[in-house]
Amino acid sequence: MSLYDTFIQKVREIKNLQSVNSLLEWDQETMMPPKGIEYRAAQLALISGIVHEKLTSDELGELLDKLSSPSELDGLDELKRANIREIRREFEKAKKLPTELVKEIAETASLSQNAWVKARRESRFGDFSLWLTKMLKLKTQAARMIGYKEHIYDALLDDYEPGATVGKIKVILGDLKDGLVPLIREVLSSKVALDDSILHRDYDVSRQKEFGTKILQDMGFDFEAGRIDISAHPFCTSFAPGDVRLTTRYGANDPKMALFGMIHEAGHGLYEQGLAPEHHHTPMADSISLGIHESQSRLWENMIGRSRLFWQHYLPKARETFPKSLSGVGLDDFYRAINRVTPSFIRVEADELTYNIHILIRFEIETGLFEGVIQVDDLPKIWNRKVEEYLGIVPPNDREGVLQDIHWALGLFGYFPTYTLGNLYAAQFLRRAEKDISDFWGKVSGGQFSDLKNWLNTNIHRHGRLYSADDLVRRVTGETLNAKHFLGYLQNKFGELYRLSS
Amino acid sequence: MSLYDTFIQKVREIKNLQSVNSLLEWDQETMMPPKGIEYRAAQLALISGIVHEKLTSDELGELLDKLSSPSELDGLDELKRANIREIRREFEKAKKLPTELVKEIAETASLSQNAWVKARRESRFGDFSLWLTKMLKLKTQAARMIGYKEHIYDALLDDYEPGATVGKIKVILGDLKDGLVPLIREVLSSKVALDDSILHRDYDVSRQKEFGTKILQDMGFDFEAGRIDISAHPFCTSFAPGDVRLTTRYGANDPKMALFGMIHEAGHGLYEQGLAPEHHHTPMADSISLGIHESQSRLWENMIGRSRLFWQHYLPKARETFPKSLSGVGLDDFYRAINRVTPSFIRVEADELTYNIHILIRFEIETGLFEGVIQVDDLPKIWNRKVEEYLGIVPPNDREGVLQDIHWALGLFGYFPTYTLGNLYAAQFLRRAEKDISDFWGKVSGGQFSDLKNWLNTNIHRHGRLYSADDLVRRVTGETLNAKHFLGYLQNKFGELYRLSS
Repeated sequence: MSLYDTFIQKVREIKNLQSVNSLLEWDQETMMPPKGIEYRAAQLALISGIVHEKLTSDELGELLDKLSSPSELDGLDELKRANIREIRREFEKAKKLPTELVKEIAETASLSQNAWVKARRESRFGDFSLWLTKMLKLKTQAARMIGYKEHIYDALLDDYEPGATVGKIKVILGDLKDGLVPLIREVLSSKVALDDSILHRDYDVSRQKEFGTKILQDMGFDFEAGRIDISAHPFCTSFAPGDVRLTTRYGANDPKMALFGMIHEAGHGLYEQGLAPEHHHTPMADSISLGIHESQSRLWENMIGRSRLFWQHYLPKARETFPKSLSGVGLDDFYRAINRVTPSFIRVEADELTYNIHILIRFEIETGLFEGVIQVDDLPKIWNRKVEEYLGIVPPNDREGVLQDIHWALGLFGYFPTYTLGNLYAAQFLRRAEKDISDFWGKVSGGQFSDLKNWLNTNIHRHGRLYSADDLVRRVTGETLNAKHFLGYLQNKFGELYRLSS
Repeated sequence: MSLYDTFIQKVREIKNLQSVNSLLEWDQETMMPPKGIEYRAAQLALISGIVHEKLTSDELGELLDKLSSPSELDGLDELKRANIREIRREFEKAKKLPTELVKEIAETASLSQNAWVKARRESRFGDFSLWLTKMLKLKTQAARMIGYKEHIYDALLDDYEPGATVGKIKVILGDLKDGLVPLIREVLSSKVALDDSILHRDYDVSRQKEFGTKILQDMGFDFEAGRIDISAHPFCTSFAPGDVRLTTRYGANDPKMALFGMIHEAGHGLYEQGLAPEHHHTPMADSISLGIHESQSRLWENMIGRSRLFWQHYLPKARETFPKSLSGVGLDDFYRAINRVTPSFIRVEADELTYNIHILIRFEIETGLFEGVIQVDDLPKIWNRKVEEYLGIVPPNDREGVLQDIHWALGLFGYFPTYTLGNLYAAQFLRRAEKDISDFWGKVSGGQFSDLKNWLNTNIHRHGRLYSADDLVRRVTGETLNAKHFLGYLQNKFGELYRLSS
């Protein structure tokens, strides 16, 4: 076996073990009975520990050193060199963390998630705060060991959006905020009131599942290589390009939740299914960053799924599926209902405009926590104050406030900003796809998505981690990451919906 | 940490990793999309390899050696000494097998299972025979490495029924056959014909699930520590006493399949849930043998679940649940229908009498395969000939013949005889429980199972692997394993049903 083949065999072992952990996590959130939790946490810690040991082994280090010599590199193609580069990055980062800390974080995440589920159900932040404090301490410790140039939060961001920093994100989110805040103000003071009462009627849950599944099939999600289940917090996970799992949740009087949730997760799922199977369990079949991942889900959920032309195709079908609730509902009524802008408490159910405000709030709180200027015990108060400041409403309880998201329970600090980065990337990609694909919107209005799916496969998915997020967006769109196109998209869409001047 | 505590920590790591493999297997059979198979096989091989390395590590060997010194053993209680004894047994056995072979068997089992599912669907033994040949070769290799005194098959039996040998089993099965064959002949030539046409009416599948679930709850199966799903071949697996998974399959015109299947698997499940949680992931919270395990499922499924008094309680409820199909059906009609004896092709759907003939056939074929007197390619022919010889019927295809069971695909040679051993153990345990529990059958007729469950918990489950199967049955019943009570039970029950003179 060549040196490179030996190396890639080791890499595949590590990545395959990580995918075992992903299965343990998926099962915990979808299938595991309550009393399984204690042992699950131990299993996750165990596998995380083995992964970490393998990833930081002298054996892998020596292989990386040998492969990095000019004579070896010369004989390898671009993809192989990129695999080496990416694994070296992971290796060096992992080397900074002791196995015990990695295991403790994995075990704490599993237990803390369980505490969060209960605290959220009871709407009692106090039942969760000790876990959050513990997780914060562990992640602070990890961030210090990983190191950073400017801001401790940069060390965390790197896990989700390699190359991103607090400094860069502040600039981008600042640009966005400058355009978004006045736009929201205009929308909310507009005389146009969009009515979404049709979305509070009865929608049979099993029919919601059928209807959503049909859309996912049309999008090109392969159910022979994936499935969809129910979980408290929707997510997409993948164990290989041939096994991609989506989750959603259903509300009998809220079809939006499952419907757009499913399209969203399937956007992620198409990315995972679109990775090159021949590179499975290597960086060349791994996603670039969460921002790029989120661009895929946002593009499908919002830019396609909440468009007028999409529903030109699907509304007649929806009417057939839910005749009682939708008969007589016209396309304009429906389009307006699904795009109604209204300040709300729950991030994942927010409209496209206010959504980014939810992210802004979390970004400010997270950086504050890691700067030490915000204390865990003050979180419910600070949370509610910020929601009031930005959205003019006050959460009635912790369940609809500080306890709504799973991320902090899992230790995923630095994750939230990638949601908004995803919106910006999505708008940039969409602009390009509209140019590259002939009759783009005509195809959407006919429920024909294969060109878009192929475009995403070719331009984004297939590259794995060959390019950085920065390089990819420049390569595909000719521009660096910016808020311009997303703001333009929002101004255009909501300007028309709310009949704003300009 | 004491030497023993260090040891037990290592043991828990190994057992917890094995339970990760059990989850991978459970997921493969219940949840995994078809295209996930390739990667799943690699994951199973990976974890199996790590387990094997840990189980055969010098570190564990040294700990075992140190702990086995008289001075160390003196300071330990009976349970701890038993844990050391059992792990030493596993260690020494594992030491005989190279990691590569263990991994190859795990990977082959996963792929071969997949081939079996397809071959069974298409009823084409030819599509599976290469996999079977490969598995047979691997298991022969393993059996030779493990070693045996009399018969190569003894090395395989030891995985499932420690202490059992071909010699011993032939004697026991011989006794059983001597009593069973004339009994079956009498039953089949009796003038009494039991009618089971009521069991071919329509039974709504979701109601079957509800009804079965209620029975499982009554039995004491804890759904906070377990769940039930659908799979092609019903099974019970456990990742810890707090996470026990059952599977079943439903037939809209065959309520027996799911109903008795669920009770059967829940019998296994109660064993797993009844293991001492404080000893989780050590031999003291592991089952003794598959024979003892099967005694639990058989006792519940047949001796309780197919009894007249059980249905005195449940038939009125069944009538409410399936009014169209069961209204007007009396207790005698129902009792006779579920106990009708008829030669049939599928083992898992066989009646209590002919069931053991199916095992006899498999035992003869398996020993023949390992003795080299039967060739894989001849299996369909030999299978059909034996079914005709013993049961007087010829399977119309491989699906209902040689391809019906998953065991060979998974390499589980030596497993089948434990099903019949389970019947014998069950009859011996039942005899004792009837004496120990006051008004035993009165309680069954009232749907009150807590005394029986507690009796099984106390006398069998809680002991983990403290005793051997032989010791346990002697300790609980005062007798060694024998066919007498099971034969007596069958003669009694079917003598009455078929009005045999005796």
